[in-house]
Amino acid sequence: MRTSKYLLSTLKETPNDAEVISHQLMLRAGMIRKLASGLYTWLPSGLRVLQKIENIVREEINEAGAVETLMPVVQPFELWEETGRSEKMGPELLRFTDRHDRAFALSPTAEEVITSLVRNEVNSYKQLPLNLYQIQTKFRDEVRPRFGVMRAREFCMMDAYSFDIDKDGLNASYEAMHEAYCKVFDRMGLDYRPVLADTGAIGGSASHEFHVLANSGEDVIAFSTKSDYAANVEMAEALAPAEARQAATQEMTLVDTPNAKTIADLVKQFDMPVEKTIKTLFVKADENFDGELVALLVRGDHELNEIKAEKLPQVAAPLEFATEEEIRAAVGAGPGSLGPVGLKVTFIADRSVAAMSDFGAGANVDGKHYFGINWDRDVTLGEVADIRSVVEGDPSPCGQGTIQLKRGIEVGHIFQLGTNYSEKMNCGVLGADGKNTILEMGCYGIGVSRVVAAAIEQNHDENGIIWPDAIAPFTVAIVPMNMHKSERVREAAEKLYADLKAAGVEVLFDDRKERPGVMFSDMELVGVPHTVIIGERSMDKGVFEYKHRRDGEKIAVDMENMVDYLKDAFQPEKKTRRRNV
Amino acid sequence: MRTSKYLLSTLKETPNDAEVISHQLMLRAGMIRKLASGLYTWLPSGLRVLQKIENIVREEINEAGAVETLMPVVQPFELWEETGRSEKMGPELLRFTDRHDRAFALSPTAEEVITSLVRNEVNSYKQLPLNLYQIQTKFRDEVRPRFGVMRAREFCMMDAYSFDIDKDGLNASYEAMHEAYCKVFDRMGLDYRPVLADTGAIGGSASHEFHVLANSGEDVIAFSTKSDYAANVEMAEALAPAEARQAATQEMTLVDTPNAKTIADLVKQFDMPVEKTIKTLFVKADENFDGELVALLVRGDHELNEIKAEKLPQVAAPLEFATEEEIRAAVGAGPGSLGPVGLKVTFIADRSVAAMSDFGAGANVDGKHYFGINWDRDVTLGEVADIRSVVEGDPSPCGQGTIQLKRGIEVGHIFQLGTNYSEKMNCGVLGADGKNTILEMGCYGIGVSRVVAAAIEQNHDENGIIWPDAIAPFTVAIVPMNMHKSERVREAAEKLYADLKAAGVEVLFDDRKERPGVMFSDMELVGVPHTVIIGERSMDKGVFEYKHRRDGEKIAVDMENMVDYLKDAFQPEKKTRRRNV
Repeated sequence: MRTSKYLLSTLKETPNDAEVISHQLMLRAGMIRKLASGLYTWLPSGLRVLQKIENIVREEINEAGAVETLMPVVQPFELWEETGRSEKMGPELLRFTDRHDRAFALSPTAEEVITSLVRNEVNSYKQLPLNLYQIQTKFRDEVRPRFGVMRAREFCMMDAYSFDIDKDGLNASYEAMHEAYCKVFDRMGLDYRPVLADTGAIGGSASHEFHVLANSGEDVIAFSTKSDYAANVEMAEALAPAEARQAATQEMTLVDTPNAKTIADLVKQFDMPVEKTIKTLFVKADENFDGELVALLVRGDHELNEIKAEKLPQVAAPLEFATEEEIRAAVGAGPGSLGPVGLKVTFIADRSVAAMSDFGAGANVDGKHYFGINWDRDVTLGEVADIRSVVEGDPSPCGQGTIQLKRGIEVGHIFQLGTNYSEKMNCGVLGADGKNTILEMGCYGIGVSRVVAAAIEQNHDENGIIWPDAIAPFTVAIVPMNMHKSERVREAAEKLYADLKAAGVEVLFDDRKERPGVMFSDMELVGVPHTVIIGERSMDKGVFEYKHRRDGEKIAVDMENMVDYLKDAFQPEKKTRRRNV
Repeated sequence: MRTSKYLLSTLKETPNDAEVISHQLMLRAGMIRKLASGLYTWLPSGLRVLQKIENIVREEINEAGAVETLMPVVQPFELWEETGRSEKMGPELLRFTDRHDRAFALSPTAEEVITSLVRNEVNSYKQLPLNLYQIQTKFRDEVRPRFGVMRAREFCMMDAYSFDIDKDGLNASYEAMHEAYCKVFDRMGLDYRPVLADTGAIGGSASHEFHVLANSGEDVIAFSTKSDYAANVEMAEALAPAEARQAATQEMTLVDTPNAKTIADLVKQFDMPVEKTIKTLFVKADENFDGELVALLVRGDHELNEIKAEKLPQVAAPLEFATEEEIRAAVGAGPGSLGPVGLKVTFIADRSVAAMSDFGAGANVDGKHYFGINWDRDVTLGEVADIRSVVEGDPSPCGQGTIQLKRGIEVGHIFQLGTNYSEKMNCGVLGADGKNTILEMGCYGIGVSRVVAAAIEQNHDENGIIWPDAIAPFTVAIVPMNMHKSERVREAAEKLYADLKAAGVEVLFDDRKERPGVMFSDMELVGVPHTVIIGERSMDKGVFEYKHRRDGEKIAVDMENMVDYLKDAFQPEKKTRRRNV
């Protein structure tokens, strides 16, 4: 491609409304333009990356045995009512009526459509397993679209749906997709992790997220320092402390603490180690539980993990914190003075809390705390559960090493749905036993357009994007110096361009009448991995200059050998794969 | 692909609601399934064809110098108001509001979006010419979606938009796209014609439609028997008869014709040649014209061409026929007795009418006609124009041969828009003279999903689809006979499958436990062009059987030579191109 015939559309200035680096660079590098809030036009350079990602996804998902289909963007609303998701999705599901007043929705995902297809098309276990996927435009009417294509309203997603006759089949389909996802992100040259994820409200039996690691990531992932273990911090189990609870050494005393409203106040004013303090949080109880509220106890230096808490049978889902009024009505005191001693509300203690001795907590009287509390002597320890988030240094739940936290951007998610949708939509086939058998489903998504942004978050420097070869919009940039004045440079550049094209290499040939500095900074901003600089001075020595985007070091290469040199320089696709469980 | 791992989804019965053959076959061959009125899910076989067409389009449009982008399906409604097309499109433009009550539309086309992009991104004539395109989902809320994907609501379209500094540039861009379109349809192996088309209400300066020829086509195309001339029948010029008007031989007489309400009655009751009769039609006059109505005269055996009539300055656009009341008020008589003699309304005569002598027409008195009318002697011939549709046997307007009519399905359209949109949206750049210059635009569409249906309308027989190689879902089908009982057959089939895949051939390997008859009829229905039959009996002779879908003749081929034989049998892409003007 010649820049003169291309829409490069690079920007010198960083647009004001772009908060994250990938959004800024996608705008500056001429990859996208905003059409409206959360709606982006993909300019040529952006689309080239998007299509490369699409193709890698397509190849690997095909290889895993899934079969490609294409479902409409516009879906009949009645299908969403059939599964009850029309309510659950809320206004993110964009609804409208057609000219005949029939209700439709813009597809945010396609479980309903694919399940209705399979229930019509498949009628025998002999046609299974079946995994159908599509790479298609999706729409979610986000209340606050942001971060460019990272959280856009219209986006490109690969969504696959597997159908199996039983759980073993589902497990096999799930494993095949897990493997395919690893291949996809390996091939893209991204540093990523498959992590154990919450199965959430759908109540499936297994789930993994695939995260591209980047400091700017919204999610926190817990890793073991010594094994492959990785889990979303929402999911990572916080083990009980290895050391047993120590014996009591202090008497319990009631202390006036009028100015200690927070753990920090308490620690500061009474010189108390934060590990000797307790936070007491009140949430609404499950409707089948005897009582309005439940108290949750975590150590002062820990955070309640809401996902874990929500799964407790005593606790209402979705999780809802009690208001101060509700707490006062139930306890007789307000936040800042709450604790287990003398509490009339059932409490559940985190495992770390259960291991504490000689600790301090609110006395359930405003402005008072008990110090030197010990379990069973002063207050009976009831139910103990894992309800906190792990922190760095915790022992890893895999049994090896300790927990380390990193930030990640979720780009993929695989999920065992079980019979959740197939039951509601009566999607069954004739089993080997001659009986109707409801199918076991899995669903699998890759945020194709999000991968573009995630790759940039992970691969950039102050001059722009640094694309891995596999997803670069162009592999090679040719930058001729003053070509419009030097016939010799022009000829050499044209010849190299023709030779590389003939060799199947995707080249961006900067044939604009621009100063070399402008050309260099554009090519760096766009992130072309390999650059060849052609100039009179180096040609006098029989060489061109080669520069890799990452290190920027200029290397003299014999003019004749440039094509071969480049081929050697191209990043081979990773063959080894990281595999976390 | 193994059928056992595929979603073949063939149907024995023709679905009731499918009117046209392509719709029937797409359902029966498992290419599409209806999700709702005008909304179809593309099943694997259909999507494979769609993607092949997409890829051919992409390659040739790239080759023509256009650059691919991707615009959102959801477009801000305000852009449609900026060009005034929100009104013009009517309810076909599906409108809705998002959660914040902002108005949007589902994209039926993208002139507005691309023009708003270019006015922001391009600011100098040096960046031109520029041709941007996308292959993207479109939506038109058709009042009566029908014929499957031929007139669906959601469909896949390639839409390109060229931007040039002047008319010469536009002409060059237009020519390049015309050429690219020919290559596209040549490569697909379709019998098609580029035809001159009406430039319609937009008032552009040139337009061609690309039609796939098929008896079931909705459009009629006029060809020359002796040249490349082809035009939409709406557009084809009807020349004046070569012979001059003959001298009068009859006196004009007023005749009672109480039972002659139509031309057919007149011809029958008075033994009058139809070429000696005139139809007089009344339409509303243009608002700048002096008078309410205009009369249009065509010969009894000809049809008024409404597109041509609408272009007359005297006639209101859009064309509107007068009601009987309006005619009576103006003329004093009703339809069946109207004619030029004594007419108080201005009339325009077709060229053929102007060449008539001794003809009959209504006397503008109910139940009476004049016979033996002659121009100028009995009534003054006023304005003469080409207002009829051509018929077979007319002289071709190109000057060579005569007109022949064929039916076609419009699959592409190219159009010189000029400054229509760029002016309204103020899309200009700095010209070489340093002044702001409004850009000359062209727009170019290919109905990608419609091509699938059109190809089937042109290529099928009673057993199913007959795909041209270039767009077939699979190139080769392997049909092993009783493979599940014969290890020898299985081994041979597996080996051939592996060999063909290694050679890069797309193969559908029918490994189901089905009777040969079922397999054959499925492969024929799906339309795989080349089939290899593997059975014990032919293997005894050292051969497999080869069969081409079109003739069905079985040919014995040495087992060892089958891969080479197939490669020779594959249809080479057409190199010569038909080029109509």
